[in-house]
Amino acid sequence: MNTLASFELDFPAWYSDVVRRAELAEHSAVRGSMVIRPYGYAIWELLQRELDDRIKATGHENVYFPLLIPQSVLAREGDLVEGFAPEVAVVTEAGGSVLDEPLVVRPTSEATIWSTYARWIQSYRDLPLLYNQWANAVRWELRPRLFLRTTEFLWQEGHTAHETAAEAIAESLTILHRVYADVQESVLAMPVLPGRKSASERFPGARETFTTEAMMRDRKALQAATSHYLGDEFARAYGVSYTGRDGAQHHPYAASWGASSRLVGGVVMSHGDSRGLKLPPAVAPHQVVIVPITPERSEVAEAAAAMAAELRDAGVRVKLDERQHVRPGAKFFEWELKGVPARLEVGVRDLAGGHVTLVRRDGDVREEVPRDAVPARIDDVLREIQGGLLADARSFRDRHTRRIAEREEMMGFLSEAQGFAVTAWCGSAECEATVKAETSATIRCLTLEPEDPGGPCPVCGQPGTELATWGQAY
Amino acid sequence: MNTLASFELDFPAWYSDVVRRAELAEHSAVRGSMVIRPYGYAIWELLQRELDDRIKATGHENVYFPLLIPQSVLAREGDLVEGFAPEVAVVTEAGGSVLDEPLVVRPTSEATIWSTYARWIQSYRDLPLLYNQWANAVRWELRPRLFLRTTEFLWQEGHTAHETAAEAIAESLTILHRVYADVQESVLAMPVLPGRKSASERFPGARETFTTEAMMRDRKALQAATSHYLGDEFARAYGVSYTGRDGAQHHPYAASWGASSRLVGGVVMSHGDSRGLKLPPAVAPHQVVIVPITPERSEVAEAAAAMAAELRDAGVRVKLDERQHVRPGAKFFEWELKGVPARLEVGVRDLAGGHVTLVRRDGDVREEVPRDAVPARIDDVLREIQGGLLADARSFRDRHTRRIAEREEMMGFLSEAQGFAVTAWCGSAECEATVKAETSATIRCLTLEPEDPGGPCPVCGQPGTELATWGQAY
Repeated sequence: MNTLASFELDFPAWYSDVVRRAELAEHSAVRGSMVIRPYGYAIWELLQRELDDRIKATGHENVYFPLLIPQSVLAREGDLVEGFAPEVAVVTEAGGSVLDEPLVVRPTSEATIWSTYARWIQSYRDLPLLYNQWANAVRWELRPRLFLRTTEFLWQEGHTAHETAAEAIAESLTILHRVYADVQESVLAMPVLPGRKSASERFPGARETFTTEAMMRDRKALQAATSHYLGDEFARAYGVSYTGRDGAQHHPYAASWGASSRLVGGVVMSHGDSRGLKLPPAVAPHQVVIVPITPERSEVAEAAAAMAAELRDAGVRVKLDERQHVRPGAKFFEWELKGVPARLEVGVRDLAGGHVTLVRRDGDVREEVPRDAVPARIDDVLREIQGGLLADARSFRDRHTRRIAEREEMMGFLSEAQGFAVTAWCGSAECEATVKAETSATIRCLTLEPEDPGGPCPVCGQPGTELATWGQAY
Repeated sequence: MNTLASFELDFPAWYSDVVRRAELAEHSAVRGSMVIRPYGYAIWELLQRELDDRIKATGHENVYFPLLIPQSVLAREGDLVEGFAPEVAVVTEAGGSVLDEPLVVRPTSEATIWSTYARWIQSYRDLPLLYNQWANAVRWELRPRLFLRTTEFLWQEGHTAHETAAEAIAESLTILHRVYADVQESVLAMPVLPGRKSASERFPGARETFTTEAMMRDRKALQAATSHYLGDEFARAYGVSYTGRDGAQHHPYAASWGASSRLVGGVVMSHGDSRGLKLPPAVAPHQVVIVPITPERSEVAEAAAAMAAELRDAGVRVKLDERQHVRPGAKFFEWELKGVPARLEVGVRDLAGGHVTLVRRDGDVREEVPRDAVPARIDDVLREIQGGLLADARSFRDRHTRRIAEREEMMGFLSEAQGFAVTAWCGSAECEATVKAETSATIRCLTLEPEDPGGPCPVCGQPGTELATWGQAY
C-alpha cells in the first residue's frame, strides 16, 4: 500500500494520485481524453440525475443535436468562431472520401442549435423555448488534467430563446441559483459564490456570463458552472425571427448554460484529505461499506449480508465487501481512499456484544451501534456528514477569503495563492491584465448586481466601480 | 390539418411524415445526422431508463471511453478495421494543426476498450469485467432514415471479459433475453424473435452474433438489437492476458452488445396507423392528455387541473392541454398523431353529469367515466393498451410468418416482402446470396440452437442443416 502524494505539500500530485488510485478516471491513448471508470462514472450519474431533475423542474425539456457541425454554420457567429477556432477538432474525411466541407466536432452547440431554431421559432407562441441536451463536447486541450480540463468532456448545455432581454437574463439567473448553486451546495457540499464575469472572462459572444465559483483545498478557484445571457446576436446571426404579439417581426433573446464532468474533479478537490477522497453521501456510489472482519465464518458473513439487505431496503447505497483474499486492514485503506462516508465492521466480538462498529470517513472515532439501531444511526450519520462537509468547506473558504484595499497586499496574497481576495475594481481590463501578469490571478467574479466597493481600485488608484473577487484558478 | 401519407400504400412516406409531424426528429445540416426533438427524446429517455435498469440488475456497471480513437489502435484488429473502414469519419486537424496521427470518431468501441482492458485485467480475480457505456457513435450513412439509419446515433454498448468461452456466450444470451427481448416486448410492446445471425451477417470480428428481430407494419424486419460473442480475438489483438487460477497466462473471452436510438423508429413502425403514432404507455411521454372542451370557463379549467393533479399523484404522466387558441378538434388530431394512449375530455356537460369522457388511442369508443373513478379506470386502461399493443403486433407478425418448403413460393413471398419466411437452409453463403439477389431478403436469424429443419434447402435442394427465418430488412 503505497501512500498518496502529500495533500499539504503537493496538492496537484495528490489530486492525480487520488483520481487514479480511487479508480475514478485515467488518461487514454488520445492526448487529453480520459477514460471514466465505473466508480467515477457512478458519481457522475448521481450528479447528472440531480441536475436533470432540477433542469426539468424549472420547465426545461431534453433534446439532442448532432455532434458534427459544418464549418460554415459555426462561422456565422463571428465571436463564437473566433473564440473556439484554436480549440476545435475537424473531420475532413468520411465514408472513404475527403469531404467537400469540413465538419467541426462540437465545442459547444449554440451554432447548430440556433440554425435549427430558425425553423422552430415563428410566433411568440413558440416562446420561450426551454431546451437542454446531455452530450459530449471536444475542445483541444494542451494542458489536460483529468476531469478539470479534458479534450473531450461530458456536460449538459441548455439553450433557450425568449421574447425579451429581461426574460433571458432571468433564465440565466434561475439556472445559476436553482440548478447550479443548489446542486453544488446541497448535493456536492461545495459552497459556491454566484457572480458575474468581467468582460474579458465572458463566453465568446455573450453579453453577460454568470458563474458559480468554488474554492478548492489548495485555495485555488474552480469555475463550477456558467450561464450566459447572449442578447439577440445569435438570433441575428442565424436568421431567427418571429411574429410578436404586436404583429411585427422580432429577434428572440438567448441564454445558454452548462455544467460538466469537471464537477467530479471539484468534489475531489473540495473534500479530500491525506487519506484520499471524502465523498458527500448524496453522490457517493457506496454510502456505506460493510466489512465482515472474518468473512470466512458463516455467522459473520450472514450477519453482514442481513445488515446490507436491511440498509438497502431503507434506501441506502451499500457495498458489502466479502472478498476473502483481502485483509480487513487493506479494505479499510481502500474504502477510505475511495471516500465512502461510513464503514460498518462486523466481527465475532461485535456479534457476541449485539452490536457493530461504525467508523465515519469524516472522523476517527469508533462507535459501537446496537444491531437493531443501525438503519436509524446510518440515516443520521449520512445526514451529518453531508451537512458537515458543506460547513467545513464553507469555513475553509471563509478563512481564506480576505477583503483587501492595498495593492502590495493584494499582489502578495494572490501570487502566493492564499485564497480569494475581495477588492474594489475600477472596471478596466488593463488592471485585470496587470494583476494576471504579476500574480496569475484573475477576477473570478463580480457581485451579481454592481455594488459600491467603498474605495479606490488597489491596482491603479482610480475610483472603484465594482466589487471583485480574485483568485488563481483551474 | 393536412393528412399523412397512406399507411397502407406508402409506408416509408407515412413513417417520414409521422416522425416529422409528431415532432420526434428531423434532419440536420449534416447529411445523415438528426436532431431529436423533445417528444422523441422523451421516448428515448424512458426507454434508456428501462434498458439501464436491466443492465445494472444483471450486474453491469457504466463507464465512459473516449469518442476519438487513434487510427493505429483501430487497425490492430483486422476484421474490425476492415468492416468499419468504409463508414468512419476521420479527424485530421485539431487545435489549429494537422495531427500526426488521424483520429477516428468511434463507430463502435471494441478497439479503444480492449486496448484499455490490457491494463485492467491482470488476474482471474479481475474477471468477469462487466462494463457498459451510453454514448454517441458515428458511421457514415449514404441512405439515412431518421432513427433507423443515421450517421450519428445514440446507443449503449456493453463490453465484457470472461475467463471462459462458455461464460462469454452465456453473457451474450443473458443480455439478449433479460435485457433486450424483455425491454422490447414488455416495454416497447414489440414482439421479437431471438436468434443467431448467419456468418455473412455477423458483426466484424465476431464468432457468433445474436439478434432480436421484429416485424414492422410493412412486414419488413427490423434488427432491434444485437449481442456478440467475440472469442479471444480481441484479447489477442490488444495484448490482454491474465494469470489464471492455474497460475498460467490466458487470454480472456469477450462479448459486446448494443441497442440504439433506432428502437424509437421501431416503436413507430410497430404500432402506428393511418392517424399516426400509437405509443405503448410504458414509453409514452404523456400517458394521458386532458383536453378541457371550453378552457375559457373557469369551472372546466379547474376540474381539468384538479384531475391532472390527481392523476400525477397516482404516478401517471399527464399532459394538460390548456391552450386557448387551439380548438378541441385540432387538439384531438394532434394528440392522436402523437400517439398519446388515452385522452380525457372535460366539458360543461361532463361536469354536470359528474363524469368525464375517455377516448382510447387504440379504439374509437367514447366512454363516460365517473369523476371519482378516473384514476382506477386510467390505471386499467393503460395496462390494457400496453398488453393489447403487444398482442396485436404479435398476431400481425404471426399472420405474416409462413413456413415454406418450395423455392418458387419462397422467392415470390420474399420478393413481395409478404413477411417472414421460415425455411430449411443448407448453411451455404451461396444460397443466401442467391436469395438476396432475387428478392432483396436476407436471413434475419437462425434458431438459437441449431434445429433439424425437417427437409432440404429450398434454394439448392441440398440437405437442410438449420432452420432460418428470412425477410426484407431495414
